[in-house]
Amino acid sequence: MAKSPETEHPVKAFGWAARDTSGVFSPFKFSRRATGENDVQFKVLYCGVCHSDLHMIKNEWGVTRYPIVPGHEIVGIVTEVGSKVEKFKAGDKVGVGGVVGSCRECDQCSNDLENYCAKLVLTYNATYFDGAITYGGYSDLMVADEHFVIRWPENLAMDAGAPLLCAGITTYSPLRYFGLDKPGLNVGVVGLGGLGHLAVKFAKAFGTNVTVISTSLSKKKEAIENLGADAFLVSRDPQEMEGAASTLDGIIDTVSANHPLLPLINLLKPHGKLIMVGAPEKPLELPVVPLILGRKSVTGSGGGGVKETQEMVDFAAEHNILPNVEMIPIDYVNTAMDRLLKSDVKYRFVIDVATSLKTD
Amino acid sequence: MAKSPETEHPVKAFGWAARDTSGVFSPFKFSRRATGENDVQFKVLYCGVCHSDLHMIKNEWGVTRYPIVPGHEIVGIVTEVGSKVEKFKAGDKVGVGGVVGSCRECDQCSNDLENYCAKLVLTYNATYFDGAITYGGYSDLMVADEHFVIRWPENLAMDAGAPLLCAGITTYSPLRYFGLDKPGLNVGVVGLGGLGHLAVKFAKAFGTNVTVISTSLSKKKEAIENLGADAFLVSRDPQEMEGAASTLDGIIDTVSANHPLLPLINLLKPHGKLIMVGAPEKPLELPVVPLILGRKSVTGSGGGGVKETQEMVDFAAEHNILPNVEMIPIDYVNTAMDRLLKSDVKYRFVIDVATSLKTD
Repeated sequence: MAKSPETEHPVKAFGWAARDTSGVFSPFKFSRRATGENDVQFKVLYCGVCHSDLHMIKNEWGVTRYPIVPGHEIVGIVTEVGSKVEKFKAGDKVGVGGVVGSCRECDQCSNDLENYCAKLVLTYNATYFDGAITYGGYSDLMVADEHFVIRWPENLAMDAGAPLLCAGITTYSPLRYFGLDKPGLNVGVVGLGGLGHLAVKFAKAFGTNVTVISTSLSKKKEAIENLGADAFLVSRDPQEMEGAASTLDGIIDTVSANHPLLPLINLLKPHGKLIMVGAPEKPLELPVVPLILGRKSVTGSGGGGVKETQEMVDFAAEHNILPNVEMIPIDYVNTAMDRLLKSDVKYRFVIDVATSLKTD
Repeated sequence: MAKSPETEHPVKAFGWAARDTSGVFSPFKFSRRATGENDVQFKVLYCGVCHSDLHMIKNEWGVTRYPIVPGHEIVGIVTEVGSKVEKFKAGDKVGVGGVVGSCRECDQCSNDLENYCAKLVLTYNATYFDGAITYGGYSDLMVADEHFVIRWPENLAMDAGAPLLCAGITTYSPLRYFGLDKPGLNVGVVGLGGLGHLAVKFAKAFGTNVTVISTSLSKKKEAIENLGADAFLVSRDPQEMEGAASTLDGIIDTVSANHPLLPLINLLKPHGKLIMVGAPEKPLELPVVPLILGRKSVTGSGGGGVKETQEMVDFAAEHNILPNVEMIPIDYVNTAMDRLLKSDVKYRFVIDVATSLKTD
């Protein structure tokens, strides 16, 4: 791998990369592979800024390879397709989420769960089958195997819709898989950020009663009036939490900071499920007896497969579900990361890549 | 409640009770209620010694009311039935497990899950509907509402079979509920004590491939040759554990001491379940990221409902599943508790109550 990112492949590409653990972005010239027979090449229009991008650019998970071009909520227009591509043609609206490759043979892949394949290739900072490092959507151009490309619904906004490809599927998938998609069920959502606000929207679209649980009372008005939640609990108010004990069928927990699980477990009915989709770095304290007494579960869920991601964007289009976003130019990304660190965004930054990305 | 246990009710009863946190047992005269119209009174023949009895007599869970008469693996012969009792008559073989009362109206009760009813009445150390404290099976006589009485199968040994009523259902129920009862699945069992050895037997009877996971290599021969397990892993051997990574569909974890969960979570396939049935006093460390990456769950299970307990003893009778027990006289119970504390029993003590319990 002596080749430089700029000359490794034949197709010129340009994006913004973080160069070291400072996480500061600057413009970055690199290259993409030529469009293979099963590949779809597309011009990136918009790319969401995921909280995991923030972890990765600072190497907080210890796996970052610099320079890193993040971005896995990518929406664009097809520019070229390979000879064997059947699903797409030039001019199609498409999206790519967190995964661009998998073994296609294992139990997980056979069951449309490429996101749980042991050999999955992430959209950025991973090693693709050709040995090259993957670069994400903070860039002008993408190329991906058509299997991992999502058809973008005609009536779904491309700019605000971009975060569905990670934040959307990350909350939609567990609501479906764990059966929290039935009208009348009581669903909790912990944390009201990029993931949380979409969990509320999907859970409401499924007809469930949604309770938002937050450390801060300041989010109550927003949760109920703007996002449509039915109830609000301040997690630091023991009395309020006690009053809602044993009422929820399941909870989507989007918080990635260390936080106590017991108050959340207590909110669950017997057989209820606490589903972690935020990723705290350090282990949390798990009280076992309350799990036993109520046959309750603490579980996790990571993204979704290609088929389910397609189903999710189609569902979002049908039910007019869109993330609440703040559109930004690419040269605002360093400021955006500072603000994201302080949760100062409602609720997702989306980079207007095509308009703002300039090769000097 | 000024009445003494001896005169509170009209029916004389006699057992052994622990009097304080020393947990030392001595003979105890008390009383039982007269047989109500829905009640079944029975002479206790055998009673298993559960690990929770040991916790309770020493007030390790902070809820013990002395004198305490433990025992919730109780088998005997019906002596008298109330006027409205339909399922039983004098002379029938019966059993009572961990629960003797519940509300009979809630969602849990309506779904035959009395063990998860918020108003359940435990077989000992609880307050019954008449305000009296419940006393368990380390005694000559029991009385219980017929709803909570199990019909003992004709061809199931009453002595060795007693521990099925707690240890049996505690392992059978999660294997069923979490779908680990399908031939060909790979099931792990952590800890080879009263619960663990029955988990192995039930899992084998369901046709699964069973791996016993233990801290001690010394149990390997026993697990494979005597209990029929297919494989054995030493949990303290990282290489052995790594070699078995991502191979198990589910794990029944019977260990009530503090222990690391990550090595067990790593043994699970995607979507696998780690099911806690032992009850560690203090919270365990839960690493969240591995749950997310594999959509894995850590869950708990506590006993089983009446209907499922009946199904379980019938299944045990049909498949010749019996606990391995050491029969003891009641006056050995203090020694038995000392030995239980050191896990020095294969695998369950059963008190031969009828033969050994003497009213001076």
